[in-house]
Parts: sequence; structure tokens; C-alpha cells
Amino acid sequence: MTPALGDIGKRLLLGRKLRSTQLGETLLPKRIALPVFASDALSSVAYAPDEIFLTLSLAGLTALTISWKVAIVVALVMLVVVASYRQNVHAYPSGGGDYEVANVNLGPTAGLTVASALLVDYVLTVAVSISSAAQYAASAIPALEGHQATAAVIAVLFLTTMNLRGVRESGAAFAVPTYIFMVTILGMAAFGFGRLLFGTLPNAETAVFDVAAEEPFVHGAGGLAMGFLVLRAFSSGCAALTGVEAISNGVPAFKKPKSKNAATTLLLLGCISIAMVISVVTLANVMKVRFAEDPATQLLRDGVPVGAGYHQDPIIGQLAKGIFDHFSLGFYLVAAATGVILVLAANTAFNGFPVLGSILARDGYLPRQLHTRGDRLAFSNGIIILAAFASLLIVAFNAEVTRLIQLYIVGVFVSFTISQTGMVRHWTRLLKTETDGAKRRQMHRSRTINAIGLTMTGVVLVIVLLTKFTHGAYIAIIAMAVLFLLMKGIRRHYNAVSKQMAAEGDEQLMLPSRVHSIVLVSKLHKPTLRALAFAKAARPYMLEAVTVDVDREESETLQAEWDARGIPIPLKRLASPYREITRPILQYVRDIRRQSPRDVVMVYIPEYVVGHWWEHLLHNQSALRLKGRLLFTPGVMVTSVPYQLISSQAAEERQDREERVAGQVRRGARKASGDR
Amino acid sequence: MTPALGDIGKRLLLGRKLRSTQLGETLLPKRIALPVFASDALSSVAYAPDEIFLTLSLAGLTALTISWKVAIVVALVMLVVVASYRQNVHAYPSGGGDYEVANVNLGPTAGLTVASALLVDYVLTVAVSISSAAQYAASAIPALEGHQATAAVIAVLFLTTMNLRGVRESGAAFAVPTYIFMVTILGMAAFGFGRLLFGTLPNAETAVFDVAAEEPFVHGAGGLAMGFLVLRAFSSGCAALTGVEAISNGVPAFKKPKSKNAATTLLLLGCISIAMVISVVTLANVMKVRFAEDPATQLLRDGVPVGAGYHQDPIIGQLAKGIFDHFSLGFYLVAAATGVILVLAANTAFNGFPVLGSILARDGYLPRQLHTRGDRLAFSNGIIILAAFASLLIVAFNAEVTRLIQLYIVGVFVSFTISQTGMVRHWTRLLKTETDGAKRRQMHRSRTINAIGLTMTGVVLVIVLLTKFTHGAYIAIIAMAVLFLLMKGIRRHYNAVSKQMAAEGDEQLMLPSRVHSIVLVSKLHKPTLRALAFAKAARPYMLEAVTVDVDREESETLQAEWDARGIPIPLKRLASPYREITRPILQYVRDIRRQSPRDVVMVYIPEYVVGHWWEHLLHNQSALRLKGRLLFTPGVMVTSVPYQLISSQAAEERQDREERVAGQVRRGARKASGDR
Repeated sequence: MTPALGDIGKRLLLGRKLRSTQLGETLLPKRIALPVFASDALSSVAYAPDEIFLTLSLAGLTALTISWKVAIVVALVMLVVVASYRQNVHAYPSGGGDYEVANVNLGPTAGLTVASALLVDYVLTVAVSISSAAQYAASAIPALEGHQATAAVIAVLFLTTMNLRGVRESGAAFAVPTYIFMVTILGMAAFGFGRLLFGTLPNAETAVFDVAAEEPFVHGAGGLAMGFLVLRAFSSGCAALTGVEAISNGVPAFKKPKSKNAATTLLLLGCISIAMVISVVTLANVMKVRFAEDPATQLLRDGVPVGAGYHQDPIIGQLAKGIFDHFSLGFYLVAAATGVILVLAANTAFNGFPVLGSILARDGYLPRQLHTRGDRLAFSNGIIILAAFASLLIVAFNAEVTRLIQLYIVGVFVSFTISQTGMVRHWTRLLKTETDGAKRRQMHRSRTINAIGLTMTGVVLVIVLLTKFTHGAYIAIIAMAVLFLLMKGIRRHYNAVSKQMAAEGDEQLMLPSRVHSIVLVSKLHKPTLRALAFAKAARPYMLEAVTVDVDREESETLQAEWDARGIPIPLKRLASPYREITRPILQYVRDIRRQSPRDVVMVYIPEYVVGHWWEHLLHNQSALRLKGRLLFTPGVMVTSVPYQLISSQAAEERQDREERVAGQVRRGARKASGDR
Repeated sequence: MTPALGDIGKRLLLGRKLRSTQLGETLLPKRIALPVFASDALSSVAYAPDEIFLTLSLAGLTALTISWKVAIVVALVMLVVVASYRQNVHAYPSGGGDYEVANVNLGPTAGLTVASALLVDYVLTVAVSISSAAQYAASAIPALEGHQATAAVIAVLFLTTMNLRGVRESGAAFAVPTYIFMVTILGMAAFGFGRLLFGTLPNAETAVFDVAAEEPFVHGAGGLAMGFLVLRAFSSGCAALTGVEAISNGVPAFKKPKSKNAATTLLLLGCISIAMVISVVTLANVMKVRFAEDPATQLLRDGVPVGAGYHQDPIIGQLAKGIFDHFSLGFYLVAAATGVILVLAANTAFNGFPVLGSILARDGYLPRQLHTRGDRLAFSNGIIILAAFASLLIVAFNAEVTRLIQLYIVGVFVSFTISQTGMVRHWTRLLKTETDGAKRRQMHRSRTINAIGLTMTGVVLVIVLLTKFTHGAYIAIIAMAVLFLLMKGIRRHYNAVSKQMAAEGDEQLMLPSRVHSIVLVSKLHKPTLRALAFAKAARPYMLEAVTVDVDREESETLQAEWDARGIPIPLKRLASPYREITRPILQYVRDIRRQSPRDVVMVYIPEYVVGHWWEHLLHNQSALRLKGRLLFTPGVMVTSVPYQLISSQAAEERQDREERVAGQVRRGARKASGDR
């Protein structure tokens, strides 16, 4: 099981991407692995600081000065989580991810909880990232203002189409924009700090605004309400942690020594991420950035609200405008780099969601057809489901990142917490049997780190639940619960069915004594002739053609033609005074079975094979219905004898071509895993 | 062909209704036939006078005095149409209706035109009748005001459900409300004329209002604009003629002498209809009823518009309020009787539409599965399509009868005109061979009547097109054109296919030399064992079991179990390095065919038969996909070997029960046609 899981696990984030890496190598060196896995984690710097600021803004201007403290706590949590996942990477180099860790160490219920949380979070990753990208686009292209939701849905449709068409990005396609983003943001920060050192750093445009405090904070910021607000700001800031677990799913894709390289990359990712968040928040403080949830009423110019006409840039945009005040292209570069990395982050979910779905389907928690087995269709279903739910969220929340983010993070921290619990169990279990002193010390150390991680993520989870539950997190929780119950129900159904179908230990083939074949005939055309010929070639014990006498005239014509052609098979005409087709045939088949219960009846149905979907509406419908009914009758087999119409040839070639392409994709992925 | 058409034709309006007539007779005496066929025609008195009035109102108060002249012309047209259809009834006692008349005499293009027009008009019958019923309901129950569209859609859904569940009205169910309606309206009219005679007839409530004339009519009513307006009023008034053709479709349901009885009933229907329309319009004139399209602005009280708060009762409602001023229950009785007859009129379309669809399907113009062949499902499709389009229209036009009526009537008059043209041709053709003098005179007389009918309906059609085209009739025309082209395309497709499939004159059975059987195996459970047993029982020339080696471990387990059980069939394991299922099997089958092209390959697929629709999502999906692909491969048969899961038994019983019910319905209908 583990190798298969590893194989799929690797595809979780690398997927078919690797096919066209053209990097000469299918296993990733750290310099490529970092950007491939980092887009999700790094992209959150585009909205996490904004959320900290706008939450604190509710308490007025002075509260904004707390923002850097909040950022430091977020960074601390990030460090702990990174340290914890470094242990995961060493313990589960197969890349099974949190689902595997929970499943193996805590049992299927924990595994399923993690899976539900992750599925919900994939959807939210798409919704939040694309909505945020739409905000950046609107701040660079004013015409988009007010149409963010439409733009976001179009972007989701675009990603969906690309993913459905199987266009996969190469490692380079990931690496270039991610490095550009890192260089842009860190470069901007360095330049900003430089100007600060030389005293030439200007204030942000928004520095002139005052911020109107909300009701409980009007008379100064303090007390319980303030504490709660800070916790909410912290919860939102923790959005910066999403995506950190990605590397732990991707260990098999690293160059050897895999675990060590993955752990190093993880540390690197954490450091860069922390550096970005801290830099952005610090600069925003220094440059006196104002940022409010509802700028029209909360931002005051000379004591008067700025009004609905005001467009508020994201914090990174405001920083860029200030720092690059003599280089206006800088702002557009920052906006573009941020927008691209957000879209890449969303694309990560488009890779991850179907693969997790496939793993769950393999374990019997989702319909079997979602299990890949190298099948393109399985992926398509996953992609479409993800896109549909993400679009639904975007439309329902009008692409407002602030409202969407209330639903986000819950899932991530549920999965963090359970996974860390699983890791503590893992080490405890290993310690029971391990006798080597050095190894035991190492395990004790790992267990301590994971226990700290568990405590930390657990506390954060509680804070997130407390501060966000009524703001929208309850929606995510309900969605998880529904998913959980649905998957459990599906698994129970599969179990019940497989119990029903299990062959008994000593069960042998129970041979029916004879096969009684009947060929259904409506007209005497080529498909019928073929069906008759094929049925005769099978040399059954008994063979007859059967037609239903719906229209006397028609069936007499048929009989005459039958005789004229001298077809050496008897034609049986079933009476149908009430113009039914299905019932007389069912009745006839049941009668045969009644007369000789040990016989089996084989019903041949001539079918037209057509090439266009709309042709299906025009053909074979009564055959299909009849077949459906016959299958319910015990002791009956139904044989479709296809007759290929001309239009079917083009369709056949089309399908062959599609399968060939899908096959190439898989072969590429397979080659990678074969090498390791 | 004719008997079948007659049989179906009769069902056009009687349909399965007859089953539960409980009238002792399945053939209808005139007193029952009249109400059964009349609801559609009579119900139009509920809205036709209103449309005349509101159109004339555009020219101000004085124009309303023209209304009775318009009504007399409508009555005249009605008389001519009735006289014409009496000829149809004698010439086509089979009840084929306008579609048959056009098809036989003018060819398939004319027939298809009539069919398109009728299909569109069935949809409009539902939309107009139900919308009008909603107006009446709102005038009796003020709380409904403003929610007419919602109420109308709910009524459509109700009718849909009743018709889908196969609840059919008996003749009595039709007769009672129709007679109540006739008695109510004619009784009210008689009472009104009585009071007029004694000088005690009060004015209508609206008599106090003035009517504001629209732009071109402000300075008096006259000139070209006025003429055009009168023509528009006349066009709308012609709505009273819809439904007259119904009896000509129902001739076979009459007691003998069928044609004579049908002709008499038709005349009776025409007379009652005319009496109603003329009475209502005359009383409305005498009682000074005011009725406007937009009462809020057009109706003036002391020179000031009455405003949005005013609710305008339909004309029949206003008459009832005035005539029964000392008997307020009278108003509710009139409103209820009118509402019920309108719903019955809509229900007529629910019977007629699927049957016409079935006739068109039989002739290859619509998908074959719409052809009844005693199948309930065929009817269900028709009912759902009708309800969907009618609801769409109701919502799009907000259940406003005045706007919907602009789309109506075009179809009826297209079909009238073409049908009368066909009848003229019919008599001309018969006259060519007829030698008997008396019969020739009769035919000449009939031809003259039909020619007058043709002229009259043709002129009305032109007027309707001229006055209503831009007001909405163009939508109906476009819909007809689209339907026409669609049906022509479907017929062309069927023709092409049947040409492809036609067996050549001397074509005999081309026997393949041998049957090579393979059984697809994924696990060794009961379904597989059954498939193996059945396949072996068929004693093929060659039999092997085939499994795809997607997961090495799984397939080794399978092999071990296979050997342990000592299954006497070789198990072939197909390599699939890329986790594909379909491709390796397709490849294997093609290889077999390549090696021995004269063999045919029979592929056995074990299938689970499940009872719930959602279980289909969980099972057999890859089998289905594989089957779909195999059918494209020449020389292959696909045999489904069903394994019935427990849940399938309940479903089997359910389906059996449903079929039994449907069968009873058909047996009832069949009995009726067998008697004639």
C-alpha cells in the first residue's frame, strides 16, 4: 500500500507536471523544489498582513501599532509548524501527507476528519487565492473595480479549462514566477529598509487618513473586547501558514537524500515566508499604512469618511507605491508578480484536490470512479467539482477575501492538529520497541517537537474557532461534517456490498445446464443480421429470434421478409395487445426460466453505435431501457451486438487519440517514480 | 397506417381518460363529448373579450363602443371555421387532425409546418390559460395580487405532477365543471338581460372611470391608426377560436354515426361559444365596463389616474359583480367556474402535446423514444417538455395574459389555413374520379365551404401577423421555424441511418467462424464466479479470464485465490504499466481479432445490479466506460452478466408495479378502440 500511496502522494503536488519539465532530471533539486511547493505558502503574504491590519483597524488608529506583535506571534507559530513538519518528513518519506499520518496512527475516523478538512480547504484555497488575485488586478486595472467576482469566476473557469485539457506547468513554469515574486517582494522590502536607513522613506498615501474606531473601542482600546480583537487578527494572520504542509506530501519528488533535502527546503520556505510577512508588516507600520475592512466609512480624511468613491490598494500595493515613488513601474511589477503567484497557488489545489479524491476513492470513501487508475476521467470529475464549489463560494461572498478568510484556516489547523497528534503517537509506538540509545534520544527529541507543535496548533485551532466561528467558520465546519458523514456512508455501503458479494470459501463454479439464446428483432436490417450471425456462431443449445407484435402490419412484413431470405432461425412473434415492448419480452424470458430453471437465457440486442452525443438521444433508447430491466431478472445475460454507424469511426479515432495523450502523460509521471 | 393514427388520434384528446369514465360506455354520447372537447374553446371567453376591450381602450372611451362590432366579426369567423371543420370531420373520420390533413393532401413539409405550429400553440395554451386562471384567482383572493406568476407556475407544476402520476380525469370530471361554467356564464347573461329589460341593470363599478387615450388617438379616434387598432383588437378577439379544431381530432370517440354526431357537436360548440362571447361583450357595453391594459395610468377618476393601488377585475368578474349586486356569492361562483375551466383547458394541452409528439416520433421527426408504443416514459418526456416551456413563458412574461396572447393564435391560424388548403385539395382530388352526380354536388358544396374557410382564415392569419408580429408574434414564428428545422434534421438523420443499415437484397447471415470468449475479472467474488459459470455454460470455442495488472499485489492475490479454488479457466494477466484499464483490454481484443479476423470476440463483464439511483454513481462506472469503448470495435460482442444485489429486489418490484399500472391504463384505452 505504501508505495502506491507514495506514488500518488507525489503526484499530489507534482502530478503530471513533471512530464515536460525539460530540466533533464525528473527528481527535483532543492532550487526547483522550493518554488514548486512554495507558491501556496508564499502567496498568503498577499492577504495575511492585510487581514491583520483591517481587523485591528476596528479598534482605531492606535491599535494598528500592535500589528507587528501579532506578526511576530504568527512567525513563531510558523517556526513551530515548520519544525514539526520536518519530523513528518523524516518519519513518512513516502509523502502520504496528513491523511496517511492520521490514518495509520489514529485510525480511519481521524483520517477521514483530516480528509474532510483538506477537501474543504482546497476549495477555499482556490476561492481565497483567486479572489485576492482579482483584488490585485483591480488595483492595477481600475476598470475591474466592482467586477472582482466576475473576474474571479472567469479566472477559475480558465484554470479549470487548462487543467481539464491536461495542460500542466513544468517545474520551470513554477520556478520563474515564484522566484520573481520572492525577488520582487524581498527586493522591495530591502529597498524600503535602505530608504528608511537613509531617512528618505516616504509615508504611504494612506498615512494622512485617520481610522474610525468601532463601537466598543471608541473610548480607547483595551479590555476583553480588545483582547478578542487581537486574537481575531492573529487568527486571520495565520492564513500565512497554509501551504506549509505541501512539502511533506512531496518528499518522493526530491533528489536523494530525499528526507534531508525536503526538510532543508521546508526550513528555507519557512524562513522566506517569515521574512516576507515580518518585512511587510514592519514597513506598513513605519510607513503608516491605513487599511480598513470598509474604507468608505472607516477611513477619515480630516474627520470626514472618504466615501464610496475611494479605492483601497492592498498593503503590498501601498508599500510599492510609496517605496517606488520615483519608479512607478515598480508598483505594477509587484501587483503582477503577486497576481501570478496567487493564481499558481490556486492551481496547486487543482492538482491536489483530485489526487486526494482519488486516494479517498481507493479507500472506498468516495465513488470508485474518482480513483485514478490512470484514468483521465477521474481527474476531470475532481477538477469540475472543485471549480464548481470554488465558484459558488466566490459568487456567494462576492470575491471578498476578508469574508472568505473567515472560513479558511479552520481546515488547515484541524489537519495540523490531528497530524501532530498522530506523530506523537507514532514516536510513542516506535519508542516501545526501539532499543538503540541514540535512536531513542532522536525519537524523544522528535516527539517533543511534535508535542510542542500539537500544543501550538491546538491552541491556534481553538483561537480560530472562538474568534471566527460566528463570522463564517461554522460554514466550513458544517461542510466538513457533511463531507465526513457522506464519505462514511459511502464506505459503509461499499462494505455492505462487498460482504454480499464475497464468495464463500468453498464456492465453486455452479454451471447452468444449458444456454437458451434469443435475438431481439424489430426490423431486418444489417444490425439484426449481424446479431443473428453472431448468436448463431456461438452455437447455443437453443436459438430463436423474437419480435414483439406491436403493429400487426409491420410484424407481418417482417415475417414475410424473414421467410423470403430463408433465415435458418425460427422467428417467434410475441403478442402485445397493449403496444408494450418491455413486458412481453420480460414475460417470455421469465417463462423460459420457469420451464427450465437450470438454464440461463442469453438475450442478444442489436445496437447502433453512433459518434455524436446527440445521436444517443435518437437511438437505442428502448434497447437501453429493456436491457436495464432484463438485468434485474436472475439467470439472464444481455449481449450487445454493436453495429458501427459511419459517424462512430470519427468518434473512435477521437477517443483513441485522447487516450494516447493521457497515456503519454501517465508514462511521464511513471518514469519519474520508476527512477526513485 | 390510418387505423394506428386514428387510435393515437383519439387518444389525443381522450387519451387514458376513458379508462375510468364509469359511464358504462367507452364511446361518447354527444352530451359527454361536448364538455370533453369544449373546455379549450369555451375557456377563451374568459380572456378574449378582455383583450378586445383593452386594445380598443388605447383609443379612449369612445372607441369601446366599437367592441360589439369586433365581437360580431369574431363570431362570423367562428361560424365559418366551424362550418369548415364540419367538412374535415366528414372527410377524415379517423381523427388525424390538421397534421394528417396537411400531410396527406399537401405533403410532408406542410404537415411538418402544421405540427410545429401546433406544438408551439400547445405550449401557449398552457401559458395563456393558466395565467388567465391566476388573474381570476387574484381577483377572488386579493392576497394573490402581485404573485400571479408564482401561482401560475405552481399550477403548472400541479398539472404536471397529476399527469405524470397518470391521474386522468374521467368524462364526468370534464362534464361537470364545463356544464357548470356554461350554466354560470349563460345564466348570468340571461339574468343580466332580464334586468336590462326591467330597467334594473346597474352599471359596472368601472363605469365611473374615464379612459385616457394614447398618443395618436388623443384628438379623437379615426384614420389609419384607428383602423390598425381595430384590427389588433380583432386579432386578439380571435383567441376565442382556439380549441375549435379539437373535435376534429376526436371523431373516433363519438357514438355512431360518428361523423354526424361529431359535426353536430361541433356546431353546438360553435353556437354556445358565440352566444357567450356576444353576450359578454354586449353586457360589458351596456354596463359601461372600462378595461385597460395598464389601469393605473389609463383609467381616470375625475381626470386623475387611479394609480398603482387599483385592482382591475376581468370583464366577466365585473359583469358578475354588477349583475349579482345583491348576491355577492355569484361573483365567486363565476370566478371559480372560470378558473376551473381554464385549468381544464390547460390540461387538454397536457394530453394533446405528448400524443402529437408521439405521432411525430413515429414519423421520424422526433426522437423515437417519444413514440408511445404503450410506454409511459414517452408520455412523461412530453409532459415535462411542455411544462418546462410553458413555465418559462409564464415567468418571462410575468403571467400577463395580454402579452402572452400576442404570441398565441398565430399557430392556430397557420394550422387552420394549411388545413383548409389541404381540404380544398382533398375535394378537388376526389372530384377527379367521382362520377356520381349527388356526391359530386355534395363535394362541390364542401369544397366551396372549405375555400371560404381558407380565405377567411388566411385573411385572419395575415391580419394577426400584421398587427401582432412586432408585439411578440415573431417569437412564436421563430419558435416554429426552429422546431421545423430541428424536426426536418432529425428525419434526415434517421433516413441516412436507415439507408446505412438497410440489408442488401441478397444479404445472408455471414457466420463468423468461431467465438472467442473472455471474461473480465477484477476480484474473485460472486459476480465474477457467476460470469465465469455462465460463460463456460455457453461452451465457446475458446474461453479465458482476463485481468488487468494495475496493482501487482492485488493481482497476485487474485492469481493465488484463482489457483486455490482450482478454477478450470486460464487467467490471463494483462500488463498495464500506466495503471490504465481500458487500453490494455482494447488492445488485447484487437490483437485477437488481428490474429484470426474471422473470429468474433465475446467479452463478458460482471455487473452489479443495484436498486437506487445513487448506487449507480458508486458502481459499474468503469465497466460502463469500458463497454462503451468495446462497442466501437468491430467484431466484438459485449455481454453483461448481472449480479442482483439485495437492494435491486425492491426496485424490481417497484418497476413491475409501475408497469402493471401503465398496462392497465393502456388496456383501458385499448378496449375503447377495440370496440369501435
